[in-house]
Amino acid sequence: MPPDAPAHLSEEQIISLVAYLAGGAGGDLAVGIGDDCAVLGGDQTGLVVTTDLLVQGSHFDLELMSPADVGHRSMAANLSDLAAMGARPAYGFLSLGMPARPTAAFVSELVGSMVAQGRAHGLKLAGGDTVKAPQVVINLCLLGAMGNLAPVLRSGGRLGDAVCVTGLLGGSGAGLAWLQAGRDPAEAAAAEAVAAHCRPTPRVAAGRALAESGRVHAMMDLSDGLAADLPRLARASGLGAAVEAEAVPISPAALAVAPALGGDALGWALGGGEDFELLFTCDPGEVPLLAQVVAEAAEGLTVTQVGRLTQGPGVTLIKQGEEEPITYKGFDHFQEPAP
Amino acid sequence: MPPDAPAHLSEEQIISLVAYLAGGAGGDLAVGIGDDCAVLGGDQTGLVVTTDLLVQGSHFDLELMSPADVGHRSMAANLSDLAAMGARPAYGFLSLGMPARPTAAFVSELVGSMVAQGRAHGLKLAGGDTVKAPQVVINLCLLGAMGNLAPVLRSGGRLGDAVCVTGLLGGSGAGLAWLQAGRDPAEAAAAEAVAAHCRPTPRVAAGRALAESGRVHAMMDLSDGLAADLPRLARASGLGAAVEAEAVPISPAALAVAPALGGDALGWALGGGEDFELLFTCDPGEVPLLAQVVAEAAEGLTVTQVGRLTQGPGVTLIKQGEEEPITYKGFDHFQEPAP
Repeated sequence: MPPDAPAHLSEEQIISLVAYLAGGAGGDLAVGIGDDCAVLGGDQTGLVVTTDLLVQGSHFDLELMSPADVGHRSMAANLSDLAAMGARPAYGFLSLGMPARPTAAFVSELVGSMVAQGRAHGLKLAGGDTVKAPQVVINLCLLGAMGNLAPVLRSGGRLGDAVCVTGLLGGSGAGLAWLQAGRDPAEAAAAEAVAAHCRPTPRVAAGRALAESGRVHAMMDLSDGLAADLPRLARASGLGAAVEAEAVPISPAALAVAPALGGDALGWALGGGEDFELLFTCDPGEVPLLAQVVAEAAEGLTVTQVGRLTQGPGVTLIKQGEEEPITYKGFDHFQEPAP
Repeated sequence: MPPDAPAHLSEEQIISLVAYLAGGAGGDLAVGIGDDCAVLGGDQTGLVVTTDLLVQGSHFDLELMSPADVGHRSMAANLSDLAAMGARPAYGFLSLGMPARPTAAFVSELVGSMVAQGRAHGLKLAGGDTVKAPQVVINLCLLGAMGNLAPVLRSGGRLGDAVCVTGLLGGSGAGLAWLQAGRDPAEAAAAEAVAAHCRPTPRVAAGRALAESGRVHAMMDLSDGLAADLPRLARASGLGAAVEAEAVPISPAALAVAPALGGDALGWALGGGEDFELLFTCDPGEVPLLAQVVAEAAEGLTVTQVGRLTQGPGVTLIKQGEEEPITYKGFDHFQEPAP
C-alpha cells in the first residue's frame, strides 16, 4: 500500500489505492482506472469497458422504484459511460444477486427492462452470473466498440475550451427528491422529473456523433452532477474551470417540482447527479457546429455552453457576477450515513 | 417471461429465464449464456468473457478466511473459467462493495492478492467500481483472448469419449469442512486441504495447452464438483455419462482430514466443489498424449480418466460394480438456507 494511505478510506482514496495496486495503464492497456471506461490495447484495440455495481439501499430503493425502473436505470447508467467515450455499445454481462426464491415476475421485469434498454442502443446481453444475496445486487460490465475512432478522454481539455453539456440538468435529482419525500409519483407536475430519475436516456448517439466530429477535446458523462464531475474533467486535463450559474440549462422538470418541495432547482442541476447528460469541451468557436451535430444525431437534443476551462486550479461558480469556489462534492457513499 | 415459468425460481430457472430474456446467441455472439464464458464474435472475435459475483455470507466467510485468501480465491475462480475455454487471461474489471470506511489494510490485502493472482496468469486489472454495501461484495469480469484457437465448449463431447479430470479432487471441500468445523487451520494434517480451499490454482496453462492440442472435444472447470458439473457437460453435449468411483483421483489432503472430521473423502471429491480443476473429454486413445501435454504445460499436473460419455440420459456412478444415478446436485444458493 502507498506509505501515506490513511487507516480509513474515502471513496476517492479507495479508487487511488486500487489503481496503485493494479499498477496503472501501460503495456497493452491504453487507459486504466480513472476515466469513464478502460481503453484496451494490443489485440483488443478499439474496445472500451465499463463496470458498475449497484446495491439495493445504497443505489436504489425498491420501495420508490419498480424493478423495471431499476433495470432500465442500471443499464442506462452504464451505457452512459460508453457514450462518454464515443463508443458503440456491444456486449453486456449481468451479475445479479437476489434474496432467496425470487419471483419470475421480479426477474422478468428487472432483466427484461435492462435487456430492452440495452437493445435500444445496440447492446446484447451476452452472459452473467446469478447468486443469492441479502439484498438485490446488480453488476453490469459493458463492452463498447470504438471502430476506427480514438476514445474521447477526460484528460484532453485545453485552456480556454468551452465547457458544454447536452440536454437539461436537475430533472433526475428533482425526481429523486420527489420520491424520497413520499409524494405521489403519478402527480402531473412531477411526472417528468420522476421519469428523468427512473428512466434516464443515455446519450449514446450524441456521444458517438461528438467523437466522430473530431472536434471534442474532453468528454465524460454527468453521473454525480456538474459540480462533482467538472472538477474531475478539469483536474484530468490539468486545468481549472469556471461555470456561469445563469448559463446552466435547468430542467423545467426540476423547476416544476421545486416550489412544492421547497427545493433548489439550480442545486439539483449542479449537484443532483444522475442526469446522464454529456459534459464536453471544445474550441469556443466550434460550439454552434457541435450543437448541430448533436441535434441531428439525437432528435433535437440541445447543447449549452456553461463555462470554460481556466488555468485553475479548482472550479468556480460565477453567480450574479460573484465568483465562489464550487464546494459541492460527489456523494461519497463510504463517508455518508446510509440513506 | 416463458409461459411455464413458476412463481418462485431456482438458480437454474433464473439462468434459463435470463437467457430467454437476453435472446440467446446469434448475430455477433457465438456463445451466450450457459458455457464457462461467453464467446464474442464480429470485431470481437477471439474474445471470451466471464463474470462472477461473490457475496460475503453466501460465498465466503471473513471469519474463516483472510482478505488475502478471499482476493486470491475470487480471482482464481474467474481465471478458471477462462482456463476452461483454453483462453489466455487478458483484462480484469473489479467491482468492490464494502461497508463504510474500510481500512487501507483490508483493501490492500484483498485487492493486492487479487492483482497478484491475476498477474501470475498474465491478467491485468484494468478498471472497476467501488461502492458502499452492507457486506463485502466482489464482482470480477474477466476478458480472455483465444488468439487463433477456437474456444473449447461444453457441448462438443462425443459418444464414447473418455471423461478426464486434471489434478486431484476433494481437497477444497475438505478444507472448507475443516474451517467450518472450527478446527485450527494451522494444524499440519489439514494444511494442504485448507490451502486447496483458500488458495486454489486455476489451470490456465493446462487449459491453454489442451485447447492448443486440438484433441479435446469438450471442457469446463470443476467449480461445483464433478457430480454437478459433469451432468452439465453431458447435457450440453446431448449425452449422458458414467463415472467409476474407484477411478476418481481423491486428494490426499481430503483423505488426511476425513477421519478427524468423520467426513467422506469421495463425497468431497464428487460434490465438494471449488477444486477448480479441468473436466474434459477426448477420444479414449488420446488420454495418454493429453496427460503428457498437461504434465508439460503445468509442472507435472496429472490427468485421470474417471469415466466416459454414454448415450444417457443422466450420469451414473459405478461403485463396486453397482450403478447408481448421481444424485448430488450443485449447491443451489436460492433454495438452501444461508450457510
